[in-house]
Amino acid sequence: MKKITVLGAGMVGSSIIGDLSKEFDVTAVDLKIENLDEVRKKFYVKTVVADLTSESEIKAVVKDADLVVSAVPGFMGFETLRSIIYSGKNAVDISFFNHDPFELDELAKMSNLTVVVDCGVCPGLSNIVLGYLNQRVKIESYECYVGGLPFNKEYPFNYKAPFSPVDVIEEYVRPARIKIDNQIVIKEALSETEILNFGKAGILEAFNTDGLRTLLTTMEIPNMAEKTLRYPGHAELMNIFRTTGLFSSEEIKIGENKIRPVDLTSQLLFPHWKPAADEKEFTVLRLKIIAKENSVKKEYIFDLFDEFDDKTSTSSMARTTGYTCTSAARLILNDDFSRTGICPPEFIGSEPGCYHKILSMLEEKNIRFTLSEKEL
Amino acid sequence: MKKITVLGAGMVGSSIIGDLSKEFDVTAVDLKIENLDEVRKKFYVKTVVADLTSESEIKAVVKDADLVVSAVPGFMGFETLRSIIYSGKNAVDISFFNHDPFELDELAKMSNLTVVVDCGVCPGLSNIVLGYLNQRVKIESYECYVGGLPFNKEYPFNYKAPFSPVDVIEEYVRPARIKIDNQIVIKEALSETEILNFGKAGILEAFNTDGLRTLLTTMEIPNMAEKTLRYPGHAELMNIFRTTGLFSSEEIKIGENKIRPVDLTSQLLFPHWKPAADEKEFTVLRLKIIAKENSVKKEYIFDLFDEFDDKTSTSSMARTTGYTCTSAARLILNDDFSRTGICPPEFIGSEPGCYHKILSMLEEKNIRFTLSEKEL
Repeated sequence: MKKITVLGAGMVGSSIIGDLSKEFDVTAVDLKIENLDEVRKKFYVKTVVADLTSESEIKAVVKDADLVVSAVPGFMGFETLRSIIYSGKNAVDISFFNHDPFELDELAKMSNLTVVVDCGVCPGLSNIVLGYLNQRVKIESYECYVGGLPFNKEYPFNYKAPFSPVDVIEEYVRPARIKIDNQIVIKEALSETEILNFGKAGILEAFNTDGLRTLLTTMEIPNMAEKTLRYPGHAELMNIFRTTGLFSSEEIKIGENKIRPVDLTSQLLFPHWKPAADEKEFTVLRLKIIAKENSVKKEYIFDLFDEFDDKTSTSSMARTTGYTCTSAARLILNDDFSRTGICPPEFIGSEPGCYHKILSMLEEKNIRFTLSEKEL
Repeated sequence: MKKITVLGAGMVGSSIIGDLSKEFDVTAVDLKIENLDEVRKKFYVKTVVADLTSESEIKAVVKDADLVVSAVPGFMGFETLRSIIYSGKNAVDISFFNHDPFELDELAKMSNLTVVVDCGVCPGLSNIVLGYLNQRVKIESYECYVGGLPFNKEYPFNYKAPFSPVDVIEEYVRPARIKIDNQIVIKEALSETEILNFGKAGILEAFNTDGLRTLLTTMEIPNMAEKTLRYPGHAELMNIFRTTGLFSSEEIKIGENKIRPVDLTSQLLFPHWKPAADEKEFTVLRLKIIAKENSVKKEYIFDLFDEFDDKTSTSSMARTTGYTCTSAARLILNDDFSRTGICPPEFIGSEPGCYHKILSMLEEKNIRFTLSEKEL
């Protein structure tokens, strides 16, 4: 039986561990013993407590693995991935770190390793679709809309996040890079709000965020944009918070104290944004692609709607992110995907057969796109 | 020539100094030499630098005065007024301190002093009207709407304040005491928003704030409420800030620092709320009084609209607050009002002749009510 080490047993990590443990010999590693206790209660896996900021501890826990999955927090993701590569292991990463992953490309290639990064739902599944379609048609524009939201709207934020608000705020502050006519254009985050109908997910607002990541350099598509989805009104409120200075990460002096406003704001928002236990939520993803196919201009709309799984109490965010990751892991272990170096998911999509295999693995988990095509 | 000492030469203090110096021998006192320089440039007055938190310094500067006006900041108002009374001087106070002024009543009476408190526009002029009408008709309900606003709306707050946001936030946090059927009822600040048309001031929103002050105990009127006026949307936004915890005055720990969220919020709001130099603003005041006059039920609506004075660059807030105060000062100096003890302005209104004298002094300054009466 093949061996997989999963680094990080948080919300998404544990859905990955659960899925992979049905088929593989899984070792789950985390610094928090309570995360591992939780995982051991539910799944038949080995667990190891380790500090995943330490290269030597990583080397030790991945030693016997055929593949490593990294589901550590973003701030430590890049260093963890470097350590995995130093350990000579194929890997799938969903830590969504901010570094350019291609800084590790040479290192991975030197060791003949397949290292998939950004392999969640978006980035992740969205890139796989784009990589696939890009092989078949001439894409003129790509627009991606994505959000994870609670079913229950709670005034005034109408939003919940199973992680620290500081990570969400970062998305609301970082300028969004999009592509217009082959040029990278910078837009303010939270800008250009559109109100759109997402069917089961209802009427949502979409605004610019910096989510294209690797696509900005890997794809030669003249127009690309990514927008985040929230219930209407959220962007305006967050814009006001930002304008007020509440999201600023520059220290200011309050009496004798020096403080970053964002740290206070994040701490105050935490209880408002914390989901209830087993809070019902959904993931919505829409890809709108305009392309020429044999000189006919067409619009392709890929819609995905996934919700909290009552049976297993697995959040939709953990499902869509985690199962895209485990599907990629299976491709690598089955030698269906063996490109070496750093591979963002668009590389998987562009490889013959991989797209359909990923989609059929996701369908087994009841995660599927509806696709509508029309001539323009 | 009668002598007046004015304590505090800030925005409102200097309008008081300017008006009184036309007729009286005025000494202006402040801790800030720049405030006094400003006053001396514009008006013919003596100036003294003094620390008005010190009883002995107050005693020294009021020694020769026939009357003292206190226009110091609210947080020091009560102690300053006590020192004035200890000095044996009649006084008019517009510091709007939070203490119960009647704690000083016995002291003032023992020395046979007339000490008028809360003598601005609202509290102040509004109380004078109510005190007057209360002598003539049987009042069933009193509703007071008041606000000072910039003409220029600036998104998202649509509000400016010539003082620290922390004082405004205090109004948005402190529970509002109103009177319903002879009972004091507590309402949340910022609650029960109504949208109303104020003519020249446009469409404004009104919400509960704790502004009845002395009226809660001095008047036997079964129904009384005070509401603050802002441009529509402000209350909702402030409510969100409050709900988020940004107005909390309980210290929280951020890393190694302990901080009161309100201190950070106030500091961040300061540049957004600071009026431009000579920013055009207005004061709007509406009193809606329902009363029985000879068994006929009537509604009286007193409307006041006053704006920034371009000629003298005097803000409307300084005009309406300052000139109500100087009118009361003139009444005392002319022996038109000589009731001893602590006198909130409703006591002035209830004294024969005083109401009309105050109103005619304000009319000379182009501050006037329009009154509409109708039978119900």
